[in-house]
Amino acid sequence: MSPRTGRRPAGSDTRQLILKKAGTAFSEQGYDKTSLRAIARLAKVDPALVTHYFGTKDQLFATLMRLPDNLASQVAALAAAPSADRGERVVRFFLALWENEATRQSLLAVFRSAVSQPQAADSLRAFISDALLGPLAATLDLPEPRLRATLAGSQLIGLAIVRYIIRMEPLASLDVESVVFWLAPTLQRYLSA
Amino acid sequence: MSPRTGRRPAGSDTRQLILKKAGTAFSEQGYDKTSLRAIARLAKVDPALVTHYFGTKDQLFATLMRLPDNLASQVAALAAAPSADRGERVVRFFLALWENEATRQSLLAVFRSAVSQPQAADSLRAFISDALLGPLAATLDLPEPRLRATLAGSQLIGLAIVRYIIRMEPLASLDVESVVFWLAPTLQRYLSA
Repeated sequence: MSPRTGRRPAGSDTRQLILKKAGTAFSEQGYDKTSLRAIARLAKVDPALVTHYFGTKDQLFATLMRLPDNLASQVAALAAAPSADRGERVVRFFLALWENEATRQSLLAVFRSAVSQPQAADSLRAFISDALLGPLAATLDLPEPRLRATLAGSQLIGLAIVRYIIRMEPLASLDVESVVFWLAPTLQRYLSA
Repeated sequence: MSPRTGRRPAGSDTRQLILKKAGTAFSEQGYDKTSLRAIARLAKVDPALVTHYFGTKDQLFATLMRLPDNLASQVAALAAAPSADRGERVVRFFLALWENEATRQSLLAVFRSAVSQPQAADSLRAFISDALLGPLAATLDLPEPRLRATLAGSQLIGLAIVRYIIRMEPLASLDVESVVFWLAPTLQRYLSA
């Protein structure tokens, strides 16, 4: 029970707890109905502590969106992979994000907010552009790299909507390998010559 | 100025005006923040008239969603077209709906509501399933017709999100023929052997 037994500093745990509760609140209530006060209540902390760690609601939301922190470098690594594998690797990477329960909750929050809130839509557009499509386009040695990256994004976003958000069958329950089987050639065509 | 000079009955005009204002209100405010009273105010009619024509808010929303009325038969005709043209025809049909200003407004309202409202999401899922993917799947003489129709739906929904909702460039400003050029082969692969 001593603070020297190797547990993480309480501040780090609290910060993570607040983030987790914020993700839940944004996902369940949407951006505009979620207050920092409500997040503080869920995390059982003083609202001032939420502000101390994350600043404004916008900034907290941005922090949530940027999980995982190294997304852009992960995407750049995918695009730099051998051209013949690119479609499959991009699909697998995207599915891994959504099949993870914690990441899926943040992504759902982001999508819900973007649709109901013009400001959140701007944030999401900027985020997708900077963290995902930009790095992807930058490594494509092909004509119209930005358009190709955006087309790939359109199929992946559509998959997310149908499989994870509106949960339409049979795509919602389809096993991951079958999703890869169907989508990899589409991504491959957009992202290769 | 006589009622006998050939103008349509006032009731039909008023009904259309209410529908139009409802589309604007749902699109701008989202489903949950829009009341029948607010729609009546926009259309400058008594709220009782809105109820008389359309029933509840849910029913009005469903009426809006079902425009154009003959969507299901149009989709069935597309799928029955020669197999080699199918992808291109489906893409052109979908683009025509979204490139039309009035239809785009109702579709935007539907999407916004579906994301913010579980009940509206259920309605949208049922609508897409019954009016679009069902008729499409029913005419595909291929293994897994329902999955194929749903995959086609995922690419088209992703296109709508990226091009018309979050308006990401260069796809948002791309000319229609170029969109067809890029997407038709994807749809063709999902909807043909």
